[in-house]
Amino acid sequence: MFDPVEKLKEYVRHPSVSADPAFAAGMKGSRELVGGLLRDIGFAVEFVPTPGHPVIVAKRGDNPQWPHVIVYGHYDVQPPDPLDLWKTPPFDPVERDGRLYGRGTADNKGPLMAHIAGVGHLLEKEPDLPLRITFVVEGEEEVGSKHFKDFLREHRAKLADADFVFLSDTGIPNPDQMVITVGLRGMVCFEVELTNARVDLHSGMNGGVLLNPIQALAELCASLHTPDGRVNIPGFYDDVIDVEPWEREQLKQLGLREKAYAEFLGIERFHTPPGFNPFEAIRFLPTLEFNGIGGGYQGEGSKTVIPSKARVKISCRLVPNQTPEKMKELIFRTIRDRAPKGLKLKITDQHDALPYVVVPPDRSNTPKDQSPVLARAFRATHQAATEVFGRPPLYLREGGSVGLIADLKNELGLDAIMLGLFLPEDNLHAPNEGFDLGLMRKGIETVQRVLRSVARG
Amino acid sequence: MFDPVEKLKEYVRHPSVSADPAFAAGMKGSRELVGGLLRDIGFAVEFVPTPGHPVIVAKRGDNPQWPHVIVYGHYDVQPPDPLDLWKTPPFDPVERDGRLYGRGTADNKGPLMAHIAGVGHLLEKEPDLPLRITFVVEGEEEVGSKHFKDFLREHRAKLADADFVFLSDTGIPNPDQMVITVGLRGMVCFEVELTNARVDLHSGMNGGVLLNPIQALAELCASLHTPDGRVNIPGFYDDVIDVEPWEREQLKQLGLREKAYAEFLGIERFHTPPGFNPFEAIRFLPTLEFNGIGGGYQGEGSKTVIPSKARVKISCRLVPNQTPEKMKELIFRTIRDRAPKGLKLKITDQHDALPYVVVPPDRSNTPKDQSPVLARAFRATHQAATEVFGRPPLYLREGGSVGLIADLKNELGLDAIMLGLFLPEDNLHAPNEGFDLGLMRKGIETVQRVLRSVARG
Repeated sequence: MFDPVEKLKEYVRHPSVSADPAFAAGMKGSRELVGGLLRDIGFAVEFVPTPGHPVIVAKRGDNPQWPHVIVYGHYDVQPPDPLDLWKTPPFDPVERDGRLYGRGTADNKGPLMAHIAGVGHLLEKEPDLPLRITFVVEGEEEVGSKHFKDFLREHRAKLADADFVFLSDTGIPNPDQMVITVGLRGMVCFEVELTNARVDLHSGMNGGVLLNPIQALAELCASLHTPDGRVNIPGFYDDVIDVEPWEREQLKQLGLREKAYAEFLGIERFHTPPGFNPFEAIRFLPTLEFNGIGGGYQGEGSKTVIPSKARVKISCRLVPNQTPEKMKELIFRTIRDRAPKGLKLKITDQHDALPYVVVPPDRSNTPKDQSPVLARAFRATHQAATEVFGRPPLYLREGGSVGLIADLKNELGLDAIMLGLFLPEDNLHAPNEGFDLGLMRKGIETVQRVLRSVARG
Repeated sequence: MFDPVEKLKEYVRHPSVSADPAFAAGMKGSRELVGGLLRDIGFAVEFVPTPGHPVIVAKRGDNPQWPHVIVYGHYDVQPPDPLDLWKTPPFDPVERDGRLYGRGTADNKGPLMAHIAGVGHLLEKEPDLPLRITFVVEGEEEVGSKHFKDFLREHRAKLADADFVFLSDTGIPNPDQMVITVGLRGMVCFEVELTNARVDLHSGMNGGVLLNPIQALAELCASLHTPDGRVNIPGFYDDVIDVEPWEREQLKQLGLREKAYAEFLGIERFHTPPGFNPFEAIRFLPTLEFNGIGGGYQGEGSKTVIPSKARVKISCRLVPNQTPEKMKELIFRTIRDRAPKGLKLKITDQHDALPYVVVPPDRSNTPKDQSPVLARAFRATHQAATEVFGRPPLYLREGGSVGLIADLKNELGLDAIMLGLFLPEDNLHAPNEGFDLGLMRKGIETVQRVLRSVARG
């Protein structure tokens, strides 16, 4: 078997920035390194073309009686800018104090390496393991997995008979506490533009006779929340599933402190809807956030103009069981109703993602029809993580959106077991990204134990 | 006497763009041309240095018993951009259909030329005219007259014994209707910035726990007007002087039509405070306008960020007797009171101008202590304009702000008689600026008659 740390260093040396065509060689090098490793441990590997970067698909096992797990990962990384803030070069990995520094070490090259090495070790010991494994490693996660849904549709035949998806692309609070992410928020993004006069007007010549579109937009935006922090759109919360006591309990065990979080954000006070502390609000509630606003003159000093237009970018995080379609209908209708008469209103629908939740077995809200293999995989993960990390994992929903997880659910009907392997200090998407090599070893061990249990039934 | 049309062409050929140091030669050429003309008609001319462009000061008459009129003008022009929209080159004046086209023809070279030529004709005929005249022609009007107030303070001794200021830097609706501008709005400009988190935050990781500064700013902005279009700041209208019936009557005689104005603006409906039609609102009411707003992501598509900051640029037009100092105190106090607690609020005071109003003699609201020379000058202007234009002039306040007029009043105690000489089609500050040469001739004639009457007492 290969040395996972040395292989990870080699992997990081291939700069695979999917956003920038200048990194085509690094994309190819990364893809071939992953393909080579998977071939070496017994997989049939193909590079499936997409209109963007190819997807690596690697399979072992063809007995349809065996359970089938899809291991997801991505071989692309974020751009390394700003380069001058890196202590060591981003694509020349350096090991220091048990950590490996370099772009992609944590997101997602290290965690994927843990899965490949874990599978490698397991198959070395048990070459006849009765388990079908399909690695699906995409090259466009950092650019929004833009061709992944089409890929899933086109390759449904190869993938849809899987039992679950196993991956590590989420975080944990510290090296001793495994967290299994069991929910993600969905999203709708759109832009609202209001236009009044046909051109920008002189505020002296015309000031005071027409509704300024900045004012109209401010009034519209101000109408979208109540003073207590809830979203003020009729029906907005109708489809939100209730939070189960066990979910609040798990979150409590994470031991997060509001004071430390406020200090981290640099804010004086939180502003959460009644009945939810900040950590709960992030995970269990939908939001309506203003991501950007613009109109008129924004340069230095002043310019006495009444702008023709003003626009705002809005995104809503959704939680189960909200759907982008229904939410957009509600939101857009409210905006149309409240926009002042006489101004031109334009709503531009941008993109959206479904929310996701999976309930582990034996919980108050576990679906009665949960698949036995998924339930077994959850129990196996629980036991393996407890042994390897020395304490039981926590099951938590997260506030972010990972569209591909919802796509896997929506397109293939597959749930995911998300094993967290990166730490808050790993600087994902930022300079000096690093990865804890001790955690990689724990990950390798956990992956082996989980898959062995799943195979043995 | 020189030919005013030929001299105007020569004057326009000196490109005097005060905003751009590349036009230094054009500034100097324009200054020297004006200085030369004034010397030729008997004035003692000096170029008074300022930290920017010099002011031309030219005097004739030194008998302190004679009335003293200051004629104001400016020799600088707006930049000619965008050049490709000009039908003929901006600094190569072309006469066509009784109009002269070129940058500065209307603003302010043509109108100033009418005053110089009018004075020249008058002094040719009456070399002993008992009238002191001081031309004050600045070179920074198009860059905000930024050194003019200091100039006035430093040269108060030479100027403060004047009886009134006479100028043509305002407009009229058509060549047959003289308008004397008797009021201008003042202004305060400032920027409001709200900051919450110390950096932009991920809207998934942190969305729903803190007050988004765009939302906070929208709520603050939305609070500043009532639904009926009035400014919602306690005390905002306290110092606004009542409109006299004669003012509404004069405006009515202008014959403006709301439908045509709405079409010109490209708006579906007006939004004016109760009791005022749009033409009245522009002239008689103060405003609070949003000139620009910005925060967060404003590029293409979406970015799911919660911005750290959002800011808005606001300007208020003021009317007599509001003062920038008192209005800023009221407005800033209201903003501080209404800004949400917990966010950092920064108000940046930018610049301001006093409002201005002068009441002609024999009106319901003419001050009892109006200077006899000013009253005489108004009556002389009325008579001269009636004779030259074939109908009586209208006395109207305007919506714009011309700080130097308020400065002349505030620093020297002088009122102004503003004789309009440009037309709506003159394209001030725009490509294909032009000036009606017939109006110039009417202007020359009016100026002569006014000054002759003022001198004769």
